[in-house]
Amino acid sequence: MTGTAAPFAPVLRTDWIAAPEGLALLPRGSVTSVPGYAAGAVACGLKPSGAPDVGVLCASGPAVSAFVDTANALPSAPVQLNRTRDRSRIRAVVVNAGNANAATGSPGLDDARAMATRAAAALGIAADEVMVCSTGTIGERLDTDRVLPAIDAAAAARSAAGGDDFSRAICTTDAAPKAGAFRLELAGGPVTIGIASKGAGMIRPTMATMLAYVATDACLRAEDLAAATAGAARRAYNRISVDGQMSPSDTLLVMAARDGAPLAGDDLERFDAALAAVCRWSAVQMVKDGEGAEHVVRVVVSGARDGDEAERIARAIGESPLVKTAVFGRDPNWGRISQAVGQALAGAPGPPAALDVRFDGVPLGDPEVMGVMARAEYDVEVALGRGDAEFALWASDLTHAYVTLNAEYHT
Amino acid sequence: MTGTAAPFAPVLRTDWIAAPEGLALLPRGSVTSVPGYAAGAVACGLKPSGAPDVGVLCASGPAVSAFVDTANALPSAPVQLNRTRDRSRIRAVVVNAGNANAATGSPGLDDARAMATRAAAALGIAADEVMVCSTGTIGERLDTDRVLPAIDAAAAARSAAGGDDFSRAICTTDAAPKAGAFRLELAGGPVTIGIASKGAGMIRPTMATMLAYVATDACLRAEDLAAATAGAARRAYNRISVDGQMSPSDTLLVMAARDGAPLAGDDLERFDAALAAVCRWSAVQMVKDGEGAEHVVRVVVSGARDGDEAERIARAIGESPLVKTAVFGRDPNWGRISQAVGQALAGAPGPPAALDVRFDGVPLGDPEVMGVMARAEYDVEVALGRGDAEFALWASDLTHAYVTLNAEYHT
Repeated sequence: MTGTAAPFAPVLRTDWIAAPEGLALLPRGSVTSVPGYAAGAVACGLKPSGAPDVGVLCASGPAVSAFVDTANALPSAPVQLNRTRDRSRIRAVVVNAGNANAATGSPGLDDARAMATRAAAALGIAADEVMVCSTGTIGERLDTDRVLPAIDAAAAARSAAGGDDFSRAICTTDAAPKAGAFRLELAGGPVTIGIASKGAGMIRPTMATMLAYVATDACLRAEDLAAATAGAARRAYNRISVDGQMSPSDTLLVMAARDGAPLAGDDLERFDAALAAVCRWSAVQMVKDGEGAEHVVRVVVSGARDGDEAERIARAIGESPLVKTAVFGRDPNWGRISQAVGQALAGAPGPPAALDVRFDGVPLGDPEVMGVMARAEYDVEVALGRGDAEFALWASDLTHAYVTLNAEYHT
Repeated sequence: MTGTAAPFAPVLRTDWIAAPEGLALLPRGSVTSVPGYAAGAVACGLKPSGAPDVGVLCASGPAVSAFVDTANALPSAPVQLNRTRDRSRIRAVVVNAGNANAATGSPGLDDARAMATRAAAALGIAADEVMVCSTGTIGERLDTDRVLPAIDAAAAARSAAGGDDFSRAICTTDAAPKAGAFRLELAGGPVTIGIASKGAGMIRPTMATMLAYVATDACLRAEDLAAATAGAARRAYNRISVDGQMSPSDTLLVMAARDGAPLAGDDLERFDAALAAVCRWSAVQMVKDGEGAEHVVRVVVSGARDGDEAERIARAIGESPLVKTAVFGRDPNWGRISQAVGQALAGAPGPPAALDVRFDGVPLGDPEVMGVMARAEYDVEVALGRGDAEFALWASDLTHAYVTLNAEYHT
C-alpha cells in the first residue's frame, strides 16, 4: 500500500463509508490485530482446492457479544443452534466453509452441536459460549469425521497472528476475504476494531452466505452492543444487493471486551458510527466481489414521502435485472429507471410528477455521463421531489460472469 | 404443420394450456380469421429494420369489449388515455411499435389522443371507440409526422387477410408474433377466437411490454366479458415471469360481438375457460420467447396453507436468478429452491417441515432428472405438505443471451 492509497482501500468512494472522525484503517491489519483475540485455521478437505476450510476465532477472556442473522424462514442448522444461546455471552466462533449444513434437518442440528462441543473442549470454554457457522452447499450432510478433528487442530494453531488464515478459511468462492483492522480514537483512549467477513448475501449459488465477525477491545454494555450491532446491520449489510437472494446462513457477530469501564456518551456514539462504517466497508467489498460484478453503484433515492417509499424504490432499481445490465453495458437508460420506479409504486396512489435522475451528479442527458459510467463505483441518484425521505442501497451490475458462475456451478 | 404436430404448437406441453373440450387451434389462423374483423399494417420507419410498425385492428360492427392494463404506477400516455374510455365500447385498436410513448408527460398524451382521432377518422368510428397502444423506447417523444399518415395507410389497407401483418407490426424484438385463431364448439354453435400478441412483461429493455388483442364473434354481455377478461389475465399473463419487470404499457384487450344472443350458462363457462386457455397459450409463448430463454418451466407450488403463500413461494422460485441460472445450466439444485422458499416465507411463523421437490415427477436425487432438465418445457413441482392451496407460474431461464441483449441494447 502506498501513501496515495485510498484511506479505505479497496473501496474507492471514501464518502460511502461515512466514517466518524478518528477512524483509520491499519496497514496489514486483521481481526486478530485486536488485543485479546486469537484465531487459527486448517484444511480438512471440504474445499476441493485443499485450501483452509475450518477456522476458530476466540477471545482470550470473557466477552460481551451481540449478533444478527438471516431472516430466511429455513435457516441453517448452525443458525438454529446459535439462536438458543445467550446472545450477549458468545466468546468464540467456529466456522467451516464448503458445506452450509442447511436443509439437513435434525441430524444437521446434531452436527452443529457436535462442532460447538468440540470447539468448546479445545478452547477450554463452555459450549454455549461458542457460535457455529457453516457456509457452502445446501442440503448435504456435513462430514464431521473431517470437521471435528480439524476443529481441534485449528484451535491448537490459534494465535494473535492467525487473523489472515481465519479470514481466508471462511471464504468460499470469494475472490478475496473482506478483512482488516481499524483504530478508533476515543476520549478515553484508542480502541481497535477488527473484522473478518466473506460473501454478499446469496451471491454464490449453493456456496452462499455473508458472514462477518467483528472483534474489538472496546468495552461495552451488552445492551449498547446489541443496539450498535443491529444498527450496523441495518446501515450496512441490509443495504446491499447482488441478486436479491437471502441465504439461510447470513450472520453478523460482534464481540467486545466485558471487563473494564463500558463506553458511554460521546465515545459510545463514536463507536456506534465506527462499527457501522467498518461494516459498510465490508459490505461494499462484498458487492464489489459480487458474482462477476464490474461496477458497484450506490442507489440514492431522495425526496420520497417516507422512508418506506424511498427504500421500496431503491430496492426496485438496485434489484432490477434491466438496470443491472444497463450498468454493465454502460447504457444511461432513463427508461429502465422510470420503469422500476413505477413498478415499486404499483398500487400506491399518486405517482411522482417528475423524476430527476443523475449519475454522480451528472444528468442522464449529458454526454459526460458516459465518463461516470466507466467508473468502478458511482452514485445513481433519483430525486422524487415530493418529500424529505431518503434511502441508499449498494448494488452490483449483472454480467456474463454472473450467468457463467451460476449456470456452470453444479451441485 | 404435419399431422403429428402438437395440438397447441408451438407450445409442446398441451396440459399447460388447460383447454376446455371442443377448443381447437386452426391451421394458419390469425386474429382476422374471426368473422367481422379486419386489420392492416404499414411501415413508417419507427423500426430501424423498416418492418411494419403501425397497425390497425377493427371490428366491422358494434363490439362489446373489456381490457386490463399495467399496474405500473407510471403508465404510458396511451394507457392513461385508454383509461378515460368506456371500457365496454372499444371496437378498434391502433398500435405503433418502436416507441412506447411512456414518460413523455402531457405532450405524450396529446400524441396518443392524435393517434386515436386519426384512426377514428380513417375508420369512420368515434375516437372514444379506439384503444391506442405504443411499445418500444421509453422516454422519447413519438414522431407523429410519421405515425399519423401511417395510421391512414394502415386503415386503408385493412382486410380480413390482414391479421398476420398486424401481428408482426406490433412486435418489437420478439422472435415471432404470438398469434393464431381457435374454434370453440358451443351448444349454440361454433365460435371463433383470434389473438394477436407480443412480448412478455418487461422482457425487452426499453423495447418493453406485453400486448394482447383478442377478437371473437361470440356475443357476450359487457359484464360477462369483463369478468372473463379479468379471469384470463389472472390465469395467464399474471402468471408468467421472464425477469419480474412490469412495463408501463402492458395491455390485454378482448373484443366480442355486441349484436346477437349473449352466451349464458354452460356456453358462457366454456367461453371463459377457452379465453383463459387462449391467453395461456399466448403467455407461454411469451415466456418461450423471453430474452434468450432456452427453457420454460411451470413452477407448481402445492400443499400451501393458502393461495397467497403458494403464490409468494412460486414467484420467489420463478424469479430467483439462482434458480433461473440453474435451469439454464441443467443443475438439479435443491438448495437454491429451498433457499427461495425460505426467503418467500421470511417473517412468517412456522416454516414447512419438509419440501418435496420434483421435476416432471422425478425427485431431484434421481439421475433421471438430468433427462427432464434437457427438455425445453418441464414442471418444477414443490410440495409443502401443510395445506391444500396451489399456485402455478411459468418462468424462463436466465442465460447469457439475456445479458447480451440487455447490456448491448443502447438507448
